[in-house]
Amino acid sequence: MKKYNFNAGPSILPNVALEAAAKAIIDFDGTGLSLLSISHRTKEFEGVLEEAKSLFKELLNIPDNYSIYFVGGGASTQFFHIPANFLKTKAGYVNTGVWSKKAIKEAKYYGEVEIIASSEDRNFTYIPKGFDIPSDIDYLYICSNNTIYGTEYKTDLDSPVPLIADMSSDILSRPVDVSKYAMIYGGAQKNLAPAGVTFVIIRNDMLERVVRPLPTMVNVNTHVANNSMFNTPCSMPRSTATASSAAPSRRRTAR
Amino acid sequence: MKKYNFNAGPSILPNVALEAAAKAIIDFDGTGLSLLSISHRTKEFEGVLEEAKSLFKELLNIPDNYSIYFVGGGASTQFFHIPANFLKTKAGYVNTGVWSKKAIKEAKYYGEVEIIASSEDRNFTYIPKGFDIPSDIDYLYICSNNTIYGTEYKTDLDSPVPLIADMSSDILSRPVDVSKYAMIYGGAQKNLAPAGVTFVIIRNDMLERVVRPLPTMVNVNTHVANNSMFNTPCSMPRSTATASSAAPSRRRTAR
Repeated sequence: MKKYNFNAGPSILPNVALEAAAKAIIDFDGTGLSLLSISHRTKEFEGVLEEAKSLFKELLNIPDNYSIYFVGGGASTQFFHIPANFLKTKAGYVNTGVWSKKAIKEAKYYGEVEIIASSEDRNFTYIPKGFDIPSDIDYLYICSNNTIYGTEYKTDLDSPVPLIADMSSDILSRPVDVSKYAMIYGGAQKNLAPAGVTFVIIRNDMLERVVRPLPTMVNVNTHVANNSMFNTPCSMPRSTATASSAAPSRRRTAR
Repeated sequence: MKKYNFNAGPSILPNVALEAAAKAIIDFDGTGLSLLSISHRTKEFEGVLEEAKSLFKELLNIPDNYSIYFVGGGASTQFFHIPANFLKTKAGYVNTGVWSKKAIKEAKYYGEVEIIASSEDRNFTYIPKGFDIPSDIDYLYICSNNTIYGTEYKTDLDSPVPLIADMSSDILSRPVDVSKYAMIYGGAQKNLAPAGVTFVIIRNDMLERVVRPLPTMVNVNTHVANNSMFNTPCSMPRSTATASSAAPSRRRTAR
């Protein structure tokens, strides 16, 4: 009998993904080598990466003017990468709980943070609605699903400024109008893949809006220009985009 | 017949490690759950982490006044984390090739870099020796083994300032006098574990020498204080410290 883990933490991956991962660790796609022991500069690994990107694009209906990349460090790393890249003067944040607060804390290292709306007055039990979004902020940042409180944006906001969303815990759980966002990102371990991979979906015009010189690994351009392979990527993006129970095409990766 | 991969890239892990990893992906230590699906906030995962640290400490004879942590992002991320934490005015770098150059490039975002010695004059075909180490630099940085050129420091330098070494590609291949280093780090994928994990060994007094306010994930204190678990760690440190063919105690993890 299969056991399920309903605790906080990583998602239960489907058996087809676990079995494919276990097999790939011993012998990856008949190469006679472990997936863990092949270079990322091989056509075999490139195939893994391209399939993950392609399935992600298909499942989330990601428009052609967006780039997708996978990187390490978790959402906690994106909390500072985002303001490092895009906060020139002032950014707007909606405070819906612990994950927003963490992002707000990191943004303050780079510039002014304006709290555009907050549900702290009622212990984060709701998602603020009907707030005005100023046009003089560099971007608006939201956390689309708030574990701990159980609140979620059910629809995609219209924003006059670039909208950036942490979707770590609800990505692929509902259709999203990606075109309304400048950037969507999250830790992959909740809904997509094993821990260790962060996904980033970024509208290509954002790549030209980086506001300061940045270390190579912090600059969003590095990861797009190098197709997630500026440095050695995590070993196991294979199950990315296969774990959603709604995924119509997940059988494609069931090997 | 087992195939070996002699290309650049990740190490071949021993069969015992691959088999243990494959098994843990289906059923981790009899829990009925995949290692990929359990929370890092469980005693099972904490056991994995503590065993990896303990074996690493034993194999490399790491003194008690050092902390060990595992983090994502690869050595490329450490290239900027190191100067971000420790470069106040001027740091010294030994230029022994492409990996040193990458580290030097990132350090320049944070302060002055003095090239203490270089082998660029003969295309990096040797390791500079007998150079003077000034006492007014914040730290001295070396890359202990230089893939591409095949050069390696065979002994541990004596340095009057904190010595920091990238040992990505020779860690655990020879005994190291850890006490001569302020920090040793590297990508785990060459000699220790699957890709996606970076190891850091840091002398505890360095934790009080952080020179500027830093985003949480960049500050070395975050990872030590939270025992590598400030955020969700990569799924698979289990084979860390089991892959060295010289590892006397690797059988302990062969399950």
